[in-house]
Amino acid sequence: MHRCIETMYRVTKSLNEAVMKRILIIGIGAGNPDYVTIQAVNALNEVDVFFVMDKGAAKQKLIALRREICRRFIKGNDYRFAEATSPERERNVADYRGSVEDLNDDKQAVFERLISDEMADGECGAFLTWGDPALYDSTIRIVDSIIRKGGHEIEYEVIPGITSVQALAAQHKIPLNRIGGSIQITTGRLIAEGFPDNVDTVVVMLDAENAYKRFADQDIDIYWGAYVGTPDEILISGKVRDVMGDIERVRAEARDANGWIMDTYLMRRNRSVTDR
Amino acid sequence: MHRCIETMYRVTKSLNEAVMKRILIIGIGAGNPDYVTIQAVNALNEVDVFFVMDKGAAKQKLIALRREICRRFIKGNDYRFAEATSPERERNVADYRGSVEDLNDDKQAVFERLISDEMADGECGAFLTWGDPALYDSTIRIVDSIIRKGGHEIEYEVIPGITSVQALAAQHKIPLNRIGGSIQITTGRLIAEGFPDNVDTVVVMLDAENAYKRFADQDIDIYWGAYVGTPDEILISGKVRDVMGDIERVRAEARDANGWIMDTYLMRRNRSVTDR
Ligand SMILES: C[S@@+](CC[C@H](N)C(=O)[O-])C[C@H]1O[C@@H](n2cnc3c(N)ncnc32)[C@H](O)[C@@H]1O
Ligand SMILES: C[S@@+](CC[C@H](N)C(=O)[O-])C[C@H]1O[C@@H](n2cnc3c(N)ncnc32)[C@H](O)[C@@H]1O
Repeated sequence: MHRCIETMYRVTKSLNEAVMKRILIIGIGAGNPDYVTIQAVNALNEVDVFFVMDKGAAKQKLIALRREICRRFIKGNDYRFAEATSPERERNVADYRGSVEDLNDDKQAVFERLISDEMADGECGAFLTWGDPALYDSTIRIVDSIIRKGGHEIEYEVIPGITSVQALAAQHKIPLNRIGGSIQITTGRLIAEGFPDNVDTVVVMLDAENAYKRFADQDIDIYWGAYVGTPDEILISGKVRDVMGDIERVRAEARDANGWIMDTYLMRRNRSVTDR
Repeated sequence: MHRCIETMYRVTKSLNEAVMKRILIIGIGAGNPDYVTIQAVNALNEVDVFFVMDKGAAKQKLIALRREICRRFIKGNDYRFAEATSPERERNVADYRGSVEDLNDDKQAVFERLISDEMADGECGAFLTWGDPALYDSTIRIVDSIIRKGGHEIEYEVIPGITSVQALAAQHKIPLNRIGGSIQITTGRLIAEGFPDNVDTVVVMLDAENAYKRFADQDIDIYWGAYVGTPDEILISGKVRDVMGDIERVRAEARDANGWIMDTYLMRRNRSVTDR
Protein backbone atom coordinates (compact mmCIF):
# COMPACT_ATOMS: atom_id res chain seq x y z
CA MET A 1 0.00 0.00 0.00
CA HIS A 2 2.68 2.39 1.04
CA ARG A 3 4.75 1.35 -1.95
CA CYS A 4 1.73 1.93 -4.15
CA ILE A 5 1.22 5.50 -2.97
CA GLU A 6 4.88 6.13 -3.46
CA THR A 7 4.69 4.90 -7.05
CA MET A 8 1.66 7.03 -7.74
CA TYR A 9 3.49 9.96 -6.27
CA ARG A 10 6.44 9.31 -8.49
CA VAL A 11 4.27 9.02 -11.60
CA THR A 12 2.44 12.23 -10.79
CA LYS A 13 5.72 13.92 -10.05
CA SER A 14 7.25 12.95 -13.38
CA LEU A 15 4.06 13.92 -15.22
CA ASN A 16 4.30 17.26 -13.50
CA GLU A 17 7.94 17.57 -14.37
CA ALA A 18 7.12 16.91 -18.01
CA VAL A 19 4.48 19.65 -18.02
CA MET A 20 6.31 22.17 -15.85
CA LYS A 21 8.90 24.57 -17.09
CA ARG A 22 11.72 25.05 -14.66
CA ILE A 23 13.39 28.46 -14.42
CA LEU A 24 16.65 29.09 -12.61
CA ILE A 25 17.69 32.61 -11.70
CA ILE A 26 21.40 32.19 -11.21
CA GLY A 27 23.66 34.82 -9.68
CA ILE A 28 27.03 34.62 -11.42
CA GLY A 29 28.93 37.08 -9.22
CA ALA A 30 29.89 40.64 -10.05
CA GLY A 31 33.17 40.52 -11.96
CA ASN A 32 35.56 37.62 -11.53
CA PRO A 33 34.23 34.47 -13.28
CA ASP A 34 35.62 32.53 -10.30
CA TYR A 35 33.02 34.22 -8.09
CA VAL A 36 30.50 31.60 -9.26
CA THR A 37 29.56 29.18 -6.52
CA ILE A 38 29.52 25.40 -6.68
CA GLN A 39 25.74 25.64 -6.33
CA ALA A 40 25.66 27.86 -9.45
CA VAL A 41 27.97 25.48 -11.34
CA ASN A 42 25.67 22.57 -10.52
CA ALA A 43 22.68 24.65 -11.61
CA LEU A 44 24.36 25.68 -14.87
CA ASN A 45 24.78 22.02 -15.69
CA GLU A 46 21.02 21.45 -15.49
CA VAL A 47 20.10 24.17 -17.95
CA ASP A 48 18.80 23.52 -21.48
CA VAL A 49 18.45 27.14 -22.56
CA PHE A 50 20.05 30.35 -21.34
CA PHE A 51 18.14 33.58 -21.85
CA VAL A 52 20.52 36.39 -22.67
CA MET A 53 19.34 39.98 -22.61
CA ASP A 54 21.96 42.53 -21.80
CA LYS A 55 21.79 46.09 -22.95
CA GLY A 56 23.75 49.26 -23.50
CA ALA A 57 27.45 49.79 -24.01
CA ALA A 58 28.59 47.01 -21.70
CA LYS A 59 26.40 44.52 -23.54
CA GLN A 60 29.06 42.76 -25.59
CA LYS A 61 31.40 42.39 -22.64
CA LEU A 62 28.72 41.08 -20.29
CA ILE A 63 27.34 38.60 -22.83
CA ALA A 64 30.88 37.41 -23.49
CA LEU A 65 31.39 36.86 -19.77
CA ARG A 66 28.22 34.78 -19.51
CA ARG A 67 29.29 32.63 -22.46
CA GLU A 68 32.74 32.26 -20.93
CA ILE A 69 31.20 31.08 -17.65
CA CYS A 70 29.09 28.50 -19.51
CA ARG A 71 32.06 27.31 -21.54
CA ARG A 72 34.25 27.04 -18.49
CA PHE A 73 31.89 25.41 -16.01
CA ILE A 74 29.44 23.30 -18.02
CA LYS A 75 30.46 19.74 -18.86
CA GLY A 76 29.68 18.99 -22.51
CA ASN A 77 27.74 21.44 -24.64
CA ASP A 78 24.20 20.26 -24.42
CA TYR A 79 22.73 23.75 -24.02
CA ARG A 80 21.69 26.68 -26.15
CA PHE A 81 21.29 30.44 -25.92
CA ALA A 82 18.16 32.42 -26.68
CA GLU A 83 18.97 36.09 -27.15
CA ALA A 84 16.51 38.94 -26.89
CA THR A 85 17.02 42.65 -27.11
CA SER A 86 16.49 44.14 -23.71
CA PRO A 87 14.23 47.18 -23.61
CA GLU A 88 16.08 50.27 -22.37
CA ARG A 89 14.99 52.55 -19.58
CA GLU A 90 14.26 56.15 -20.50
CA ARG A 91 17.15 58.21 -19.21
CA ASN A 92 16.86 61.44 -17.25
CA VAL A 93 13.21 61.16 -16.39
CA ALA A 94 12.12 62.66 -13.09
CA ASP A 95 10.18 59.60 -11.93
CA TYR A 96 12.96 57.01 -11.65
CA ARG A 97 10.79 54.40 -9.99
CA GLY A 98 8.00 54.80 -12.56
CA SER A 99 10.45 54.53 -15.43
CA VAL A 100 11.89 51.30 -13.97
CA GLU A 101 8.36 49.94 -13.56
CA ASP A 102 7.54 50.73 -17.21
CA LEU A 103 10.77 49.10 -18.20
CA ASN A 104 9.90 46.03 -16.15
CA ASP A 105 6.53 45.73 -17.90
CA ASP A 106 8.34 45.72 -21.23
CA LYS A 107 10.87 43.22 -19.90
CA GLN A 108 8.09 41.02 -18.59
CA ALA A 109 6.63 40.78 -22.09
CA VAL A 110 10.04 39.81 -23.46
CA PHE A 111 10.59 37.22 -20.69
CA GLU A 112 7.15 35.73 -21.26
CA ARG A 113 7.81 35.38 -24.96
CA LEU A 114 11.15 33.69 -24.27
CA ILE A 115 9.57 31.29 -21.79
CA SER A 116 6.65 30.48 -24.15
CA ASP A 117 8.52 30.20 -27.42
CA GLU A 118 12.08 29.29 -26.62
CA MET A 119 11.64 26.40 -24.20
CA ALA A 120 9.58 23.22 -24.20
CA ASP A 121 7.62 21.81 -21.26
CA GLY A 122 9.92 19.79 -19.02
CA GLU A 123 12.92 21.86 -20.00
CA CYS A 124 15.03 24.03 -17.74
CA GLY A 125 15.71 27.66 -18.66
CA ALA A 126 17.98 30.11 -16.89
CA PHE A 127 18.64 33.78 -16.44
CA LEU A 128 22.22 34.51 -15.46
CA THR A 129 22.15 37.64 -13.35
CA TRP A 130 25.14 39.82 -12.65
CA GLY A 131 26.18 39.64 -8.98
CA ASP A 132 23.28 38.49 -6.83
CA PRO A 133 19.73 38.35 -8.25
CA ALA A 134 18.36 39.99 -5.07
CA LEU A 135 20.32 43.23 -5.37
CA TYR A 136 19.18 45.95 -7.79
CA ASP A 137 18.01 43.45 -10.35
CA SER A 138 14.49 42.89 -11.64
CA THR A 139 14.59 39.24 -12.69
CA ILE A 140 13.00 37.80 -9.52
CA ARG A 141 10.27 40.45 -9.54
CA ILE A 142 9.46 39.81 -13.21
CA VAL A 143 9.44 36.00 -13.07
CA ASP A 144 7.33 36.18 -9.94
CA SER A 145 4.86 38.47 -11.63
CA ILE A 146 4.61 36.22 -14.72
CA ILE A 147 3.74 33.32 -12.41
CA ARG A 148 1.20 35.32 -10.40
CA LYS A 149 -0.44 36.45 -13.63
CA GLY A 150 -1.08 32.76 -14.33
CA GLY A 151 -1.28 30.76 -17.55
CA HIS A 152 2.14 29.14 -17.25
CA GLU A 153 3.22 26.02 -15.38
CA ILE A 154 6.48 27.32 -14.01
CA GLU A 155 8.55 26.51 -10.98
CA TYR A 156 11.62 28.55 -10.22
CA GLU A 157 14.62 28.76 -7.97
CA VAL A 158 17.01 31.54 -7.02
CA ILE A 159 20.74 30.94 -6.64
CA PRO A 160 22.68 33.66 -4.83
CA GLY A 161 25.89 35.16 -6.20
CA ILE A 162 28.70 37.38 -4.93
CA THR A 163 27.55 41.02 -5.14
CA SER A 164 29.68 43.97 -6.19
CA VAL A 165 29.35 45.15 -2.57
CA GLN A 166 31.24 42.10 -1.35
CA ALA A 167 33.74 42.22 -4.20
CA LEU A 168 34.47 45.85 -3.29
CA ALA A 169 34.97 45.08 0.42
CA ALA A 170 37.15 42.04 -0.32
CA GLN A 171 39.41 43.88 -2.74
CA HIS A 172 39.84 46.80 -0.34
CA LYS A 173 40.21 44.28 2.52
CA ILE A 174 37.75 46.15 4.72
CA PRO A 175 34.80 45.03 6.83
CA LEU A 176 31.43 46.37 5.64
CA ASN A 177 30.20 47.26 9.11
CA ARG A 178 31.75 48.85 12.16
CA ILE A 179 31.57 46.62 15.24
CA GLY A 180 27.88 46.23 16.10
CA GLY A 181 26.98 48.95 13.55
CA SER A 182 24.53 49.06 10.66
CA ILE A 183 25.22 49.53 6.99
CA GLN A 184 23.01 50.98 4.32
CA ILE A 185 23.11 49.95 0.68
CA THR A 186 21.75 52.72 -1.47
CA THR A 187 21.81 54.41 -4.86
CA GLY A 188 23.53 57.51 -6.24
CA ARG A 189 20.16 59.21 -6.43
CA LEU A 190 19.35 58.67 -2.75
CA ILE A 191 22.79 59.43 -1.31
CA ALA A 192 22.69 62.76 -3.15
CA GLU A 193 20.05 63.76 -0.58
CA GLY A 194 22.56 63.42 2.24
CA PHE A 195 24.31 60.90 4.49
CA PRO A 196 21.66 58.95 6.45
CA ASP A 197 21.57 59.80 10.17
CA ASN A 198 21.42 56.41 11.71
CA VAL A 199 24.33 54.61 10.02
CA ASP A 200 28.01 55.32 9.70
CA THR A 201 28.58 53.17 6.63
CA VAL A 202 26.88 53.42 3.26
CA VAL A 203 27.55 51.51 0.07
CA VAL A 204 26.51 53.39 -3.04
CA MET A 205 25.57 51.69 -6.30
CA LEU A 206 24.18 53.00 -9.58
CA ASP A 207 25.77 56.43 -9.20
CA ALA A 208 26.25 58.17 -12.53
CA GLU A 209 26.80 61.61 -11.02
CA ASN A 210 29.77 61.38 -8.61
CA ALA A 211 27.47 62.00 -5.65
CA TYR A 212 30.34 61.42 -3.17
CA LYS A 213 31.66 64.90 -4.03
CA ARG A 214 29.03 66.54 -1.86
CA PHE A 215 30.69 65.04 1.24
CA ALA A 216 33.97 66.90 0.80
CA ASP A 217 33.30 69.04 3.88
CA GLN A 218 32.75 66.08 6.21
CA ASP A 219 35.21 63.63 7.77
CA ILE A 220 34.34 60.65 5.60
CA ASP A 221 36.51 57.89 4.15
CA ILE A 222 35.70 56.50 0.73
CA TYR A 223 36.63 53.13 -0.74
CA TRP A 224 35.88 53.29 -4.45
CA GLY A 225 36.19 50.56 -7.06
CA ALA A 226 35.46 50.23 -10.76
CA TYR A 227 35.21 46.95 -12.72
CA VAL A 228 35.92 45.25 -9.40
CA GLY A 229 37.05 41.64 -9.71
CA THR A 230 37.88 42.00 -13.42
CA PRO A 231 41.27 42.53 -15.06
CA ASP A 232 40.34 46.24 -15.48
CA GLU A 233 39.77 46.73 -11.74
CA ILE A 234 40.66 50.15 -10.32
CA LEU A 235 40.63 50.85 -6.57
CA ILE A 236 41.03 54.22 -4.86
CA SER A 237 40.61 55.00 -1.17
CA GLY A 238 41.20 57.84 1.26
CA LYS A 239 39.36 60.79 2.75
CA VAL A 240 36.64 61.96 0.35
CA ARG A 241 38.13 65.43 0.23
CA ASP A 242 41.62 64.11 -0.62
CA VAL A 243 40.74 61.58 -3.31
CA MET A 244 37.52 62.81 -4.91
CA GLY A 245 39.39 64.65 -7.65
CA ASP A 246 41.33 61.49 -8.51
CA ILE A 247 38.21 59.35 -8.52
CA GLU A 248 36.32 61.73 -10.78
CA ARG A 249 39.21 61.95 -13.25
CA VAL A 250 40.07 58.23 -13.27
CA ARG A 251 36.39 57.36 -13.59
CA ALA A 252 35.89 59.65 -16.60
CA GLU A 253 39.04 58.35 -18.28
CA ALA A 254 38.06 54.72 -17.73
CA ARG A 255 34.54 55.31 -19.02
CA ASP A 256 35.93 56.97 -22.13
CA ALA A 257 38.46 54.20 -22.71
CA ASN A 258 35.97 51.32 -22.23
CA GLY A 259 32.78 52.99 -23.44
CA TRP A 260 31.08 52.10 -20.13
CA ILE A 261 31.77 52.08 -16.42
CA MET A 262 30.64 49.94 -13.52
CA ASP A 263 31.61 51.38 -10.14
CA THR A 264 30.58 51.22 -6.51
CA TYR A 265 31.87 52.80 -3.33
CA LEU A 266 31.67 52.51 0.40
CA MET A 267 31.70 55.68 2.55
CA ARG A 268 32.39 55.59 6.27
CA ARG A 269 31.90 58.47 8.65
CA ASN A 270 34.74 58.90 11.07
CA ARG A 271 33.96 58.69 14.75
CA SER A 272 37.48 58.82 16.13
CA VAL A 273 41.02 58.52 14.87
CA THR A 274 41.51 54.89 15.85
CA ASP A 275 38.30 53.63 14.25
CA ARG A 276 37.94 52.52 10.71
CA MET B 1 69.67 44.68 -19.17
CA HIS B 2 65.92 44.41 -19.06
CA ARG B 3 66.19 40.65 -18.70
CA CYS B 4 68.68 41.16 -15.87
CA ILE B 5 66.35 43.40 -13.89
CA GLU B 6 63.59 40.92 -14.41
CA THR B 7 65.74 38.10 -13.06
CA MET B 8 66.72 40.15 -10.04
CA TYR B 9 63.08 40.92 -9.48
CA ARG B 10 62.22 37.28 -9.64
CA VAL B 11 64.97 36.34 -7.18
CA THR B 12 63.88 39.05 -4.74
CA LYS B 13 60.29 37.99 -5.15
CA SER B 14 60.97 34.37 -4.31
CA LEU B 15 63.18 35.37 -1.38
CA ASN B 16 60.28 37.47 -0.16
CA GLU B 17 57.88 34.63 -0.67
CA ALA B 18 60.09 32.37 1.41
CA VAL B 19 60.15 34.89 4.26
CA MET B 20 56.56 36.04 4.02
CA LYS B 21 53.67 34.26 5.62
CA ARG B 22 50.58 34.32 3.48
CA ILE B 23 47.16 34.48 5.13
CA LEU B 24 43.89 33.87 3.32
CA ILE B 25 40.61 34.96 4.86
CA ILE B 26 38.16 32.78 3.00
CA GLY B 27 34.39 33.25 3.10
CA ILE B 28 32.78 29.82 2.91
CA GLY B 29 29.15 30.94 2.60
CA ALA B 30 26.50 30.85 5.29
CA GLY B 31 24.97 27.40 5.28
CA ASN B 32 25.03 25.24 2.18
CA PRO B 33 28.55 23.85 1.54
CA ASP B 34 27.82 24.43 -2.17
CA TYR B 35 27.79 28.18 -1.49
CA VAL B 36 31.60 28.15 -1.73
CA THR B 37 32.87 29.89 -4.82
CA ILE B 38 35.37 28.60 -7.37
CA GLN B 39 37.70 31.34 -6.11
CA ALA B 40 37.39 29.92 -2.58
CA VAL B 41 37.96 26.36 -3.84
CA ASN B 42 41.13 27.48 -5.61
CA ALA B 43 42.24 29.29 -2.46
CA LEU B 44 41.51 26.26 -0.23
CA ASN B 45 43.85 24.26 -2.43
CA GLU B 46 46.76 26.62 -1.69
CA VAL B 47 46.47 26.36 2.08
CA ASP B 48 48.99 24.53 4.29
CA VAL B 49 47.28 25.16 7.61
CA PHE B 50 43.70 26.01 8.55
CA PHE B 51 43.12 27.89 11.77
CA VAL B 52 39.97 26.70 13.45
CA MET B 53 38.48 28.64 16.32
CA ASP B 54 34.77 28.35 16.71
CA LYS B 55 33.02 28.80 19.98
CA GLY B 56 29.81 28.16 21.87
CA ALA B 57 27.11 25.61 21.29
CA ALA B 58 27.32 25.62 17.50
CA LYS B 59 31.04 24.94 17.67
CA GLN B 60 31.01 21.24 16.83
CA LYS B 61 28.62 21.68 13.93
CA LEU B 62 30.52 24.61 12.46
CA ILE B 63 33.91 22.94 12.79
CA ALA B 64 32.45 19.82 11.17
CA LEU B 65 31.19 21.91 8.26
CA ARG B 66 34.61 23.45 7.73
CA ARG B 67 36.26 20.04 7.72
CA GLU B 68 33.60 18.77 5.33
CA ILE B 69 34.30 21.67 2.96
CA CYS B 70 38.03 20.91 3.04
CA ARG B 71 37.44 17.21 2.48
CA ARG B 72 35.06 17.85 -0.38
CA PHE B 73 36.90 20.56 -2.27
CA ILE B 74 40.60 20.06 -1.64
CA LYS B 75 42.48 17.69 -3.95
CA GLY B 76 44.74 15.42 -1.93
CA ASN B 77 45.24 15.93 1.80
CA ASP B 78 48.34 17.98 2.03
CA TYR B 79 46.98 20.31 4.72
CA ARG B 80 46.57 20.42 8.46
CA PHE B 81 44.34 22.03 11.07
CA ALA B 82 45.50 24.14 14.01
CA GLU B 83 42.75 24.48 16.58
CA ALA B 84 42.54 27.13 19.25
CA THR B 85 39.90 27.85 21.82
CA SER B 86 38.16 31.04 20.91
CA PRO B 87 37.75 33.52 23.74
CA GLU B 88 34.09 34.21 24.49
CA ARG B 89 32.43 37.58 24.69
CA GLU B 90 30.99 38.56 28.03
CA ARG B 91 27.23 38.28 27.68
CA ASN B 92 24.69 40.84 28.83
CA VAL B 93 27.08 43.72 29.32
CA ALA B 94 25.73 47.20 28.65
CA ASP B 95 28.61 48.27 26.42
CA TYR B 96 28.26 45.84 23.48
CA ARG B 97 30.85 47.55 21.35
CA GLY B 98 33.38 47.69 24.19
CA SER B 99 32.87 44.02 24.99
CA VAL B 100 33.45 43.06 21.35
CA GLU B 101 36.60 45.18 21.31
CA ASP B 102 37.92 43.43 24.43
CA LEU B 103 37.06 40.12 22.85
CA ASN B 104 38.92 41.13 19.70
CA ASP B 105 42.03 41.99 21.73
CA ASP B 106 41.93 38.49 23.20
CA LYS B 107 41.32 36.99 19.76
CA GLN B 108 44.19 38.98 18.34
CA ALA B 109 46.55 37.41 20.87
CA VAL B 110 45.29 33.94 19.90
CA PHE B 111 45.61 34.69 16.16
CA GLU B 112 49.14 36.03 16.65
CA ARG B 113 50.18 32.92 18.49
CA LEU B 114 48.70 30.72 15.75
CA ILE B 115 50.49 32.69 13.04
CA SER B 116 53.81 32.67 14.94
CA ASP B 117 53.81 29.09 16.18
CA GLU B 118 51.67 27.08 13.83
CA MET B 119 53.00 28.12 10.42
CA ALA B 120 56.47 28.45 8.92
CA ASP B 121 57.72 31.31 6.73
CA GLY B 122 56.68 30.74 3.13
CA GLU B 123 53.59 28.80 4.19
CA CYS B 124 49.99 29.71 3.58
CA GLY B 125 47.51 29.80 6.45
CA ALA B 126 43.77 30.36 6.28
CA PHE B 127 40.82 31.41 8.34
CA LEU B 128 37.54 30.04 7.03
CA THR B 129 34.88 32.55 7.91
CA TRP B 130 31.18 31.83 7.97
CA GLY B 131 29.32 33.68 5.18
CA ASP B 132 31.34 36.67 4.00
CA PRO B 133 34.35 37.90 6.00
CA ALA B 134 33.18 41.52 5.61
CA LEU B 135 29.84 41.09 7.40
CA TYR B 136 29.71 40.99 11.20
CA ASP B 137 32.99 39.14 11.46
CA SER B 138 36.22 40.33 13.09
CA THR B 139 38.83 38.37 11.17
CA ILE B 140 39.77 41.14 8.70
CA ARG B 141 39.97 43.72 11.50
CA ILE B 142 42.19 41.47 13.62
CA VAL B 143 44.59 40.36 10.88
CA ASP B 144 44.88 43.98 9.75
CA SER B 145 45.67 45.09 13.26
CA ILE B 146 48.34 42.39 13.70
CA ILE B 147 50.01 43.62 10.52
CA ARG B 148 49.79 47.29 11.52
CA LYS B 149 51.32 46.47 14.89
CA GLY B 150 54.37 45.20 12.97
CA GLY B 151 56.87 42.43 13.68
CA HIS B 152 55.44 39.94 11.19
CA GLU B 153 56.05 39.56 7.47
CA ILE B 154 52.51 38.84 6.42
CA GLU B 155 50.58 39.38 3.24
CA TYR B 156 46.90 38.58 3.14
CA GLU B 157 43.95 38.31 0.86
CA VAL B 158 40.17 38.32 1.39
CA ILE B 159 37.86 36.01 -0.54
CA PRO B 160 34.16 36.91 -0.44
CA GLY B 161 31.45 34.37 0.39
CA ILE B 162 27.66 34.17 0.18
CA THR B 163 26.20 35.91 3.25
CA SER B 164 23.20 34.76 5.26
CA VAL B 165 21.44 37.88 3.92
CA GLN B 166 21.69 36.55 0.37
CA ALA B 167 20.85 33.00 1.39
CA LEU B 168 17.71 34.32 3.11
CA ALA B 169 16.60 36.34 0.07
CA ALA B 170 17.29 33.47 -2.34
CA GLN B 171 15.37 30.91 -0.28
CA HIS B 172 12.39 33.24 0.10
CA LYS B 173 12.79 34.21 -3.59
CA ILE B 174 12.56 37.90 -2.83
CA PRO B 175 14.58 40.93 -3.93
CA LEU B 176 16.45 42.68 -1.11
CA ASN B 177 15.54 46.18 -2.26
CA ARG B 178 12.41 47.82 -3.59
CA ILE B 179 12.94 49.38 -7.02
CA GLY B 180 15.42 52.22 -6.58
CA GLY B 181 15.17 51.90 -2.78
CA SER B 182 17.78 51.46 -0.04
CA ILE B 183 18.26 48.60 2.37
CA GLN B 184 19.76 48.61 5.80
CA ILE B 185 21.57 45.67 7.34
CA THR B 186 21.48 45.93 11.09
CA THR B 187 21.47 44.05 14.39
CA GLY B 188 18.78 42.97 16.82
CA ARG B 189 20.10 45.55 19.28
CA LEU B 190 19.75 48.45 16.87
CA ILE B 191 16.41 47.50 15.33
CA ALA B 192 14.97 47.34 18.84
CA GLU B 193 15.29 51.15 18.83
CA GLY B 194 12.81 51.40 15.95
CA PHE B 195 12.45 51.05 12.19
CA PRO B 196 14.87 53.49 10.50
CA ASP B 197 13.13 56.42 8.78
CA ASN B 198 14.89 56.53 5.49
CA VAL B 199 14.59 52.91 4.31
CA ASP B 200 11.69 50.56 3.76
CA THR B 201 13.72 47.35 3.99
CA VAL B 202 15.87 46.17 6.87
CA VAL B 203 17.72 42.90 7.31
CA VAL B 204 18.30 41.99 10.93
CA MET B 205 21.12 39.77 12.11
CA LEU B 206 22.36 38.79 15.56
CA ASP B 207 18.94 39.13 17.18
CA ALA B 208 18.63 37.05 20.32
CA GLU B 209 15.54 38.85 21.60
CA ASN B 210 12.82 38.55 18.91
CA ALA B 211 13.00 42.29 18.27
CA TYR B 212 10.56 41.99 15.32
CA LYS B 213 7.72 41.66 17.85
CA ARG B 214 7.75 45.38 18.52
CA PHE B 215 6.52 46.01 14.96
CA ALA B 216 3.19 44.20 15.42
CA ASP B 217 1.27 47.47 15.22
CA GLN B 218 2.75 48.51 11.86
CA ASP B 219 2.07 47.25 8.33
CA ILE B 220 5.31 45.34 7.91
CA ASP B 221 6.07 42.05 6.15
CA ILE B 222 8.68 39.73 7.61
CA TYR B 223 10.70 37.03 5.86
CA TRP B 224 12.37 34.98 8.55
CA GLY B 225 14.81 32.09 8.20
CA ALA B 226 16.76 29.85 10.53
CA TYR B 227 19.68 27.60 9.57
CA VAL B 228 19.17 28.92 6.04
CA GLY B 229 20.81 26.83 3.33
CA THR B 230 21.26 23.82 5.64
CA PRO B 231 19.14 20.67 5.90
CA ASP B 232 17.57 22.16 9.06
CA GLU B 233 16.37 25.29 7.25
CA ILE B 234 13.08 26.82 8.44
CA LEU B 235 11.37 29.68 6.58
CA ILE B 236 8.37 31.69 7.73
CA SER B 237 6.91 34.79 6.10
CA GLY B 238 3.86 37.02 6.34
CA LYS B 239 2.74 40.18 8.10
CA VAL B 240 4.66 40.61 11.35
CA ARG B 241 1.45 40.67 13.35
CA ASP B 242 0.20 37.44 11.77
CA VAL B 243 3.34 35.31 12.00
CA MET B 244 5.31 36.66 14.95
CA GLY B 245 3.78 34.12 17.31
CA ASP B 246 4.77 31.26 15.01
CA ILE B 247 8.26 32.58 14.58
CA GLU B 248 8.82 32.96 18.30
CA ARG B 249 7.54 29.45 19.03
CA VAL B 250 9.34 27.70 16.16
CA ARG B 251 12.53 29.56 17.00
CA ALA B 252 12.43 28.51 20.65
CA GLU B 253 11.68 24.89 19.73
CA ALA B 254 14.48 24.75 17.17
CA ARG B 255 16.96 26.29 19.59
CA ASP B 256 16.02 23.76 22.25
CA ALA B 257 16.23 20.87 19.80
CA ASN B 258 19.61 21.86 18.34
CA GLY B 259 21.17 23.58 21.33
CA TRP B 260 21.77 26.71 19.21
CA ILE B 261 20.05 28.86 16.65
CA MET B 262 21.21 30.93 13.71
CA ASP B 263 18.46 33.12 12.27
CA THR B 264 18.05 36.28 10.20
CA TYR B 265 15.07 38.17 8.89
CA LEU B 266 14.11 40.82 6.41
CA MET B 267 11.35 43.30 7.25
CA ARG B 268 9.68 45.44 4.63
CA ARG B 269 7.36 48.34 5.31
CA ASN B 270 4.33 48.37 3.12
CA ARG B 271 3.78 51.37 0.93
CA SER B 272 0.79 50.16 -1.06
CA VAL B 273 -1.02 46.92 -1.72
CA THR B 274 0.62 46.21 -5.06
CA ASP B 275 4.16 46.71 -3.78
CA ARG B 276 6.28 44.11 -2.20
C1 LIG C 1 21.90 47.05 -11.75
S1 LIG C 1 23.04 46.97 -10.44
C2 LIG C 1 23.30 45.24 -10.29
C3 LIG C 1 24.01 44.83 -9.03
C4 LIG C 1 24.31 43.34 -8.98
N1 LIG C 1 23.10 42.54 -8.94
C5 LIG C 1 25.19 42.99 -7.80
O1 LIG C 1 24.84 42.04 -7.05
O2 LIG C 1 26.25 43.62 -7.60
C6 LIG C 1 24.51 47.58 -11.23
C7 LIG C 1 25.42 48.36 -10.30
O3 LIG C 1 26.21 47.45 -9.57
C8 LIG C 1 27.50 47.98 -9.35
N2 LIG C 1 28.48 47.01 -9.90
C9 LIG C 1 28.19 45.82 -10.47
N3 LIG C 1 29.31 45.16 -10.79
C10 LIG C 1 30.35 45.93 -10.40
C11 LIG C 1 31.76 45.77 -10.43
N4 LIG C 1 32.34 44.66 -10.93
N5 LIG C 1 32.52 46.78 -9.95
C12 LIG C 1 31.97 47.88 -9.42
N6 LIG C 1 30.65 48.07 -9.36
C13 LIG C 1 29.83 47.11 -9.84
C14 LIG C 1 27.55 49.34 -9.99
O4 LIG C 1 27.25 50.29 -8.99
C15 LIG C 1 26.42 49.26 -10.99
O5 LIG C 1 25.86 50.54 -11.21
C1 LIG D 1 28.47 36.84 13.54
S1 LIG D 1 27.27 36.99 12.27
C2 LIG D 1 28.17 36.38 10.88
C3 LIG D 1 27.51 36.67 9.56
C4 LIG D 1 28.24 36.04 8.40
N1 LIG D 1 29.58 36.60 8.23
C5 LIG D 1 27.45 36.20 7.11
O1 LIG D 1 28.05 36.65 6.10
O2 LIG D 1 26.28 35.86 7.08
C6 LIG D 1 26.15 35.69 12.70
C7 LIG D 1 24.70 36.01 12.35
O3 LIG D 1 24.50 35.72 10.99
C8 LIG D 1 23.21 35.22 10.78
N2 LIG D 1 23.32 33.89 10.12
C9 LIG D 1 24.48 33.30 9.75
N3 LIG D 1 24.24 32.16 9.11
C10 LIG D 1 22.90 32.01 9.04
C11 LIG D 1 22.04 31.03 8.48
N4 LIG D 1 22.52 29.97 7.82
N5 LIG D 1 20.70 31.21 8.61
C12 LIG D 1 20.21 32.27 9.25
N6 LIG D 1 20.98 33.23 9.79
C13 LIG D 1 22.31 33.11 9.70
C14 LIG D 1 22.51 35.17 12.12
O4 LIG D 1 21.77 36.37 12.25
C15 LIG D 1 23.67 35.17 13.07
O5 LIG D 1 23.32 35.78 14.29
